[in-house]
Amino acid sequence: MEADFRNKKILVAGLGLMGSAFADGLKVMAPEKVYATDLKQEVLLEAEESGLIHKGFMDPAEILPECDIVIICLYLQDALDFIRRNMNYFKKDCLITDIVGVKRALIDGIKDILRKDVDFIPGHPMAGRERTKEHFTPKSIFAGKNYLLTPSEKNRKENVELLKTMINKMGFGRIIITDPETHDEKIAFTSQLCHVIAASMVDLSDDSGITSFEGGSFQDMTRIAMINSEMWAELFIANSDKLTRILDNFIDSINFFKDNIKAGNSSVIVERFNEIGLKREAMGK
Amino acid sequence: MEADFRNKKILVAGLGLMGSAFADGLKVMAPEKVYATDLKQEVLLEAEESGLIHKGFMDPAEILPECDIVIICLYLQDALDFIRRNMNYFKKDCLITDIVGVKRALIDGIKDILRKDVDFIPGHPMAGRERTKEHFTPKSIFAGKNYLLTPSEKNRKENVELLKTMINKMGFGRIIITDPETHDEKIAFTSQLCHVIAASMVDLSDDSGITSFEGGSFQDMTRIAMINSEMWAELFIANSDKLTRILDNFIDSINFFKDNIKAGNSSVIVERFNEIGLKREAMGK
Repeated sequence: MEADFRNKKILVAGLGLMGSAFADGLKVMAPEKVYATDLKQEVLLEAEESGLIHKGFMDPAEILPECDIVIICLYLQDALDFIRRNMNYFKKDCLITDIVGVKRALIDGIKDILRKDVDFIPGHPMAGRERTKEHFTPKSIFAGKNYLLTPSEKNRKENVELLKTMINKMGFGRIIITDPETHDEKIAFTSQLCHVIAASMVDLSDDSGITSFEGGSFQDMTRIAMINSEMWAELFIANSDKLTRILDNFIDSINFFKDNIKAGNSSVIVERFNEIGLKREAMGK
Repeated sequence: MEADFRNKKILVAGLGLMGSAFADGLKVMAPEKVYATDLKQEVLLEAEESGLIHKGFMDPAEILPECDIVIICLYLQDALDFIRRNMNYFKKDCLITDIVGVKRALIDGIKDILRKDVDFIPGHPMAGRERTKEHFTPKSIFAGKNYLLTPSEKNRKENVELLKTMINKMGFGRIIITDPETHDEKIAFTSQLCHVIAASMVDLSDDSGITSFEGGSFQDMTRIAMINSEMWAELFIANSDKLTRILDNFIDSINFFKDNIKAGNSSVIVERFNEIGLKREAMGK
């Protein structure tokens, strides 16, 4: 039986880039109500007026006791604070999920205070956007993107299924079920490493006209250097052990090429590039 | 007065990815003839039959004495060999250009043998393509791309203008006039560094399913790891001094982030990211 959202009240905590895309995406499922909380009253008023949400609340305690599903769209520390401060207000049996880019630090940060009668399923939608001047983000940023979930054995199977249905209906592509350790290990590589590299590349250049001298790779590789500084610094530090290990390995690999370029070892470089080319092809476009 | 190509005979030396795109692009100017040389007879025959060129030659000496413009579309060492071996066959006053990704090594490699009565204008079209199964490449890979030229004072002004007209008509975007040192310095950064980084990233991964765990950055940043190994190894080694210096600086920048992540210096990271974000914005999309 397909999950029915029409009798559900859903809260989106935080109407930033991701939160507003969730509010927009939830409409397809026509839940009974989509509520939102935010620190800024004007954001909530605009969201109400534009029909993005049914009603906004600055104080989560006013609405949390009614909500069947809570999607926390906040940065790591803010998400921890939100859950800790509001633990007493969550509705019994409610499904809580989040969008934070590291999972171990979030799960550990609430494990001692999480009530037994709520069901927290950690999540990570692999979607985002460069900085924009628009106030609210459309759900189209989700289209075809990966969504990682790290449920535990304690989670109710029907809630995991409900969340998967919701994710699919919002337009995401693959849903990957994994554990927090694997999540943080892979994310250190596919996401955090990329951001440190992009930032380091831009860091090196003192020529704002540098893009005259390129074929597209430099711009593609450094676009993510227009970074949300606070959010990423927080995620890097929260995943410090895994990220610094990968950065060490990455430096070793760069040094391998550097040493062989310096020594003019053409055949060694060609051989390694051939292996790498095949490996990358196996990963798909 | 606009340059007229209709009385020109043009030779494309090498019908690979770039050479075939040049042959295709030259058609708009309707030169008297577009000839090509290549090591593979079947490539020349197919190019003749498909109308890509007027006639192909395996031996450059047979056709070079007739050609007003020669575009050498070969790798660095092959381009050097082509120019050295065929120096006696170039037509008096002919315009020679090339597409090699480093300029100093090419210019130095021929400066002692270049005839005074030919006009060699080094060039570098910043266009390319991932490996493909198609035999010939359409000129569309040039659309809007940058083209770098490093003419010297010895070059004839009218030939530089002729070349610029040709480049524009083939659909390129900006033409940047620079010197070989600047070219090699900038290219080490915008192009060679990107390729070493992409290769090193793929080098680190032993998981062909890694792209399940990403939001797009990893795939975008590593697509160029499907590299033409021989060509790039040759270019890296030819530009070794500049590239290894940039790789050292890049490692320093990565280490800056690594050390501050390890130490949990959030404010230092945020401050640097803010600077970098502004710098990247100034570079344009």
